Amino acid sequence: MFIKNNILLIFLVLAMATSPSHAQSKSLSKGKKSNSKEHPNLILTKKGVSEIRSALGTIPIFDASLAETKAEVDAEIALGIETPIPVDYSGGYTHERHKQNFLILQKAGVLYQILDDEKYAKYVKDMLMQYEEMYKTLPLHPKPRSYARGKLFWQCLNDSNWLVYVSQAYDCIYNYLTEKERNKLEKNLFRPFADFISVGNPQFYNRVHNHSTWGNAAVGMIGLVMDDEELIQRALYGIKGLEIDKTAKDDDGGYINKDGKAGFLANVEQPFSPDGYYTEGPYYQRYAMYPFLIFAEGLQNVRPDLKIFEFKDGVLLKSVNALLTLSDADGEFFPLNDGQKGMSYYSRELVTAVDIAYHYGNRDLGLLSIAKQQDKVLLDDSGFSVALGIKNGNEKPFVKKSINLSDGADGSEGGVAILRNEDLELVFKYAAQGSSHGHYDKLSFSLYEKGEEIIQDYGLARFVNIEQKGGGNYLKENKTWAKQTIAHNTVTQNETSHFNAKYDIGSQYHSVLNYFSFENENVQVVSAKEANAYPGTEMLRTMVLIKDEDFEKPYLLDIMKVTSNEANQYDFPYYFMGQLLKTNFKYNTPETLKALGTDNGYQHLYLEGSTKAESENSKLSWLNEGKFYTLTSVTNTGDEIVFTRIGANDPEFNLRRDAALMLRRKDTKNTLFVSAIEAHGGYSPVSEFAVNSNSSITDLKVILETEDYTAIAITNVNGNTKLFITANTNASKEATHNLKINDNNYQWSGAYYFK
Amino acid sequence: MFIKNNILLIFLVLAMATSPSHAQSKSLSKGKKSNSKEHPNLILTKKGVSEIRSALGTIPIFDASLAETKAEVDAEIALGIETPIPVDYSGGYTHERHKQNFLILQKAGVLYQILDDEKYAKYVKDMLMQYEEMYKTLPLHPKPRSYARGKLFWQCLNDSNWLVYVSQAYDCIYNYLTEKERNKLEKNLFRPFADFISVGNPQFYNRVHNHSTWGNAAVGMIGLVMDDEELIQRALYGIKGLEIDKTAKDDDGGYINKDGKAGFLANVEQPFSPDGYYTEGPYYQRYAMYPFLIFAEGLQNVRPDLKIFEFKDGVLLKSVNALLTLSDADGEFFPLNDGQKGMSYYSRELVTAVDIAYHYGNRDLGLLSIAKQQDKVLLDDSGFSVALGIKNGNEKPFVKKSINLSDGADGSEGGVAILRNEDLELVFKYAAQGSSHGHYDKLSFSLYEKGEEIIQDYGLARFVNIEQKGGGNYLKENKTWAKQTIAHNTVTQNETSHFNAKYDIGSQYHSVLNYFSFENENVQVVSAKEANAYPGTEMLRTMVLIKDEDFEKPYLLDIMKVTSNEANQYDFPYYFMGQLLKTNFKYNTPETLKALGTDNGYQHLYLEGSTKAESENSKLSWLNEGKFYTLTSVTNTGDEIVFTRIGANDPEFNLRRDAALMLRRKDTKNTLFVSAIEAHGGYSPVSEFAVNSNSSITDLKVILETEDYTAIAITNVNGNTKLFITANTNASKEATHNLKINDNNYQWSGAYYFK
Repeated sequence: MFIKNNILLIFLVLAMATSPSHAQSKSLSKGKKSNSKEHPNLILTKKGVSEIRSALGTIPIFDASLAETKAEVDAEIALGIETPIPVDYSGGYTHERHKQNFLILQKAGVLYQILDDEKYAKYVKDMLMQYEEMYKTLPLHPKPRSYARGKLFWQCLNDSNWLVYVSQAYDCIYNYLTEKERNKLEKNLFRPFADFISVGNPQFYNRVHNHSTWGNAAVGMIGLVMDDEELIQRALYGIKGLEIDKTAKDDDGGYINKDGKAGFLANVEQPFSPDGYYTEGPYYQRYAMYPFLIFAEGLQNVRPDLKIFEFKDGVLLKSVNALLTLSDADGEFFPLNDGQKGMSYYSRELVTAVDIAYHYGNRDLGLLSIAKQQDKVLLDDSGFSVALGIKNGNEKPFVKKSINLSDGADGSEGGVAILRNEDLELVFKYAAQGSSHGHYDKLSFSLYEKGEEIIQDYGLARFVNIEQKGGGNYLKENKTWAKQTIAHNTVTQNETSHFNAKYDIGSQYHSVLNYFSFENENVQVVSAKEANAYPGTEMLRTMVLIKDEDFEKPYLLDIMKVTSNEANQYDFPYYFMGQLLKTNFKYNTPETLKALGTDNGYQHLYLEGSTKAESENSKLSWLNEGKFYTLTSVTNTGDEIVFTRIGANDPEFNLRRDAALMLRRKDTKNTLFVSAIEAHGGYSPVSEFAVNSNSSITDLKVILETEDYTAIAITNVNGNTKLFITANTNASKEATHNLKINDNNYQWSGAYYFK
Repeated sequence: MFIKNNILLIFLVLAMATSPSHAQSKSLSKGKKSNSKEHPNLILTKKGVSEIRSALGTIPIFDASLAETKAEVDAEIALGIETPIPVDYSGGYTHERHKQNFLILQKAGVLYQILDDEKYAKYVKDMLMQYEEMYKTLPLHPKPRSYARGKLFWQCLNDSNWLVYVSQAYDCIYNYLTEKERNKLEKNLFRPFADFISVGNPQFYNRVHNHSTWGNAAVGMIGLVMDDEELIQRALYGIKGLEIDKTAKDDDGGYINKDGKAGFLANVEQPFSPDGYYTEGPYYQRYAMYPFLIFAEGLQNVRPDLKIFEFKDGVLLKSVNALLTLSDADGEFFPLNDGQKGMSYYSRELVTAVDIAYHYGNRDLGLLSIAKQQDKVLLDDSGFSVALGIKNGNEKPFVKKSINLSDGADGSEGGVAILRNEDLELVFKYAAQGSSHGHYDKLSFSLYEKGEEIIQDYGLARFVNIEQKGGGNYLKENKTWAKQTIAHNTVTQNETSHFNAKYDIGSQYHSVLNYFSFENENVQVVSAKEANAYPGTEMLRTMVLIKDEDFEKPYLLDIMKVTSNEANQYDFPYYFMGQLLKTNFKYNTPETLKALGTDNGYQHLYLEGSTKAESENSKLSWLNEGKFYTLTSVTNTGDEIVFTRIGANDPEFNLRRDAALMLRRKDTKNTLFVSAIEAHGGYSPVSEFAVNSNSSITDLKVILETEDYTAIAITNVNGNTKLFITANTNASKEATHNLKINDNNYQWSGAYYFK
């Protein structure tokens, strides 16, 4: 996110015009500000503190979180205060020390309030005074790599982190300080600090971006504690009268601030869809959660008149639910776009999110069961409220159902659907680009059983914070592999990625929902179209999770209809996880492994085996984590079936050596790919019993394919045939359809037929 | 284990000479047989039943096991009795039906005794009568594949399984039947059945082999119930007067019965070492456990005068402890030889073993904690005893310590050592061949942390009972890959396996212990020599698990000294598990992946990267399951460092695509390989913190290498240097050593020096 130098200057010109971002405030309630000048009032309130104090020792999860925090802070106090002159990048001593300082300051402040022990207040005060002394004369941080250098840290982002946390500490000891002490801190430390990260760095602050959200929250929170209306307004609406070059771009090729929006409200407005989906995906939504919710909590306490949690129809609270829904059975977030696998709702950000959503939302008892799993709460009013609810046994299961989440600020830019039935979860992505963290994979999917990947999405190519791997930053394989279309379970045309993997093109488009239907829990359907990934080609993918009494578990029906104005090669991989057990086709394996191609991700795939399809159904069975799976694909003579493995041209072993089966159809205009994926049976290496290890599908057949309808017949081992017909063009709920196939008449209303 | 047809005939000649196997009974107590003719008396006793009945409903684990069994048997009773004419191999209907029948018969018999409900006795009786009716005229099983065809099943092994279980059922309903009914069953079913699998199939029965153990137990258990002394003697000592061709071999090239030993006692005597190690390894020890212990239980109850649990110094009970010790932190057995990974002490065989060892042994309270984890008990006297102990809270932790287990009937054929410190476990194999399930890997090792593999042993190439993979039988890659030396973490010379991978050669030899020392828990050492794997070459490997205050966790020091009378190429792989993070050397990666060789396992390895060592220490770090590891190897200029991956010439994807780093030293006579493996730090994808991700070793150096001593200096990041000196030739505990290295004098007594 480095910005070209010549652009920087433009931002530094401040004009006197009214901020254009005020326009965004339309849905925010505009009552008079509350007269709440008592302290604490940010994340703790006087009333809350009094309740907490009187309940100490009786609320297990709260007491445990408190004990852990106390032990940590006491250990730091024993070590003494260090506020070194900043010199390092992240990982270095001064960076890590200042980072530790702000985390401990926040905790010490909270401990002072809860335990009423002055040693914590004194510790906070002493450290703040050291910062005050240093900050007065502190120059820019000496490390030059950032587009917005901070003072305590190498980038303003980290300075903002500092202020978000330290504001909370200051609030907690506000009344412990004399007025003179407060004036000193505010005049020499907090106000200059807030000015520096905002008006001093508009290219960082005045933008719709997760960095800016931190900046806005920092300025706003210290503004709330200082009761500084100018800072509060700047936090909510951006820098007043700033003139912006709307054509400036950052190094990713994206516009820095094309439409002039800025401020916290714009940052809530823009990346969240009305359903609470965050356009970058759940991994980055989790990352952004803390400043959104902690500042909202402060606003709710100090300026309840603003009704921040009702802003944009309550999107902040909705986003917490959306994020929880975007996790698998183990609570791990689906790795859409640049998501690192393993991140989950056990992260500290989600403890914050769940506690605040419970306390300031409508006390959803399902959230309590998540909090109980987290086994940790915030040491504030919201955490206390959650701990109390758990103590009283109020929790109810947080039920994750099938859901369709729209993308885009107004919900009009495609979306993400999660289909669920029993232990199976399908993740279907037909969203917008997802900002600079987006991948080029329209209409892609991944499939899970009980938290285990069956068909994986690769996720990112990065080892976050592991310095041995490119300093913990994005690896070059993120661009050459993970972002490319062929890394995903969708169609790649002519060995080029969607939108040619160009960010500024991809950012202009999104897929379009055809329909979704979750009413019949045995037949969950989502269908969406992509018309821009390859100009001249349309792809319509319909995915159905079907629970049929003839099958042990739900199975997935996957219908990809491709329409093009010219002949192309279509590659369609399934990144199955586990060990190949059996195919119903013969294939050749090469003596030596060579890369499948030279570019667009193909240079990272080895060809491990190939053949031409011989029968109408090509089947692959595999075993993963003690469960059996079978992919059955309708194949035409001439279709190539290719086994690939990731790892070619990967000299630093940055990529996982995972396999795929890929269908390749050459020299084809319009075509249809149809597959079914069954989960079945299981194997225990302890009992050594293999149960239901074979596919139950004996025939998968396309019985009608027109512009308007696609009809698939699925026949199983019991000899029963089911028919699924999907409406390709007129999929409204109200539409009635009348169709003749092989002398049989089918009549139905709604988007699909299944019987 | 198929035997050539011309050999079969030889076995069928019975002579009248006294059985030579009687000689083995020397250590078995020979008192008068007990007069125990009351029933039940085999696995349940009258006294035990009375205790169980009076405690029903009060012993949670027993009650739960009982309820589960009752539900299962009731469901089978509701389905009705089926005893089809045998026609199928395993997996087919008649096989699975008869197998299910014997399992249910045993359970129904037990339920009759415990619940005192005649419906169970009647069910057993009715089914036995159907078997009696069928068996009278039943011919050989129609399927021809076995060297010892059964009648109910395609092989005598399964017929023996049937009789082991059905004997227990018969014992339970013995008194429910009239004498006439008993006579009918014994005359037409049990006695002919026992004769058929013994005198009718001596090539199966009269041998030291796990198949024979089942046969012996079957004959013995029905003999105990019927009070048939001839059968009991035949079970204990083999077939009387059988003449044996001692030169006959089976298809694996092993002798069928070279020394004429046979019978249950010989089967206890021969494969178990005095320490209770079973020569085939823990996976097969687990498999063999049931007939050994269930028949021993019966013998102990009916013929306590034989003192079977004291036989060979109590080896049966010792073997249970040895087997438990051969499991990792998750209870999974180390996959020595042909072991399938994932098999653990949660298996049904180990429930039997633990319960019987507790009840008939010295009531080791550590066993109760294993039983508590198993959460299941046998429905017999021993299971009741265990459940009662758990209910009373008597369990103590089962502490797995470092242990050296000798191999060979008299403990003189090498062994297996497990070194343990904190969460680290080293498995070091210097044993005998391990019968037909042995692999060719002398002085090999594997390393675990908290049940996760760090350096893996491949295990077998088989998917037991998964029909899609070669019918669930051994895959050809078991021979071409898994058994070969290069598949293991030890030295391969000139790209050929130990003993040229010839079973009849390997079976003649074993490695020899140099020393082990576990007295200092911070310095656990094992050292062993192999002189026969490659004629003219000696290998001495010393492995040390060191806990040093300068290191976060224990680390492994690995010293392999090779002495040869000619120049060779030595390949030394480390099959590390996880993702490569960093090397301290540059290497080349090829454009295309080719097999490393053409034979002896090399044809299954791809060469993924290579280089020539440039520095004196070559380092590889990797990440696995959230933990960091570093291999530091002393390298000479000219050493090749090779990255390999399993999977070449594997057209059916039978092998896992796992990696190794391999050191290759060419054209060398005597040499020394020295490496250290550190486990350090960790990474959480939830907190995204990477802790202690770097090696603590800055220098690993050989400072002395003579025929008698090898001295290694280990210097760490704190600048401290430790010295480990091992005695290569005079390693007795009493020996005193006086050594000068670089002007320093080192004096110590015992096998090693460390300071």
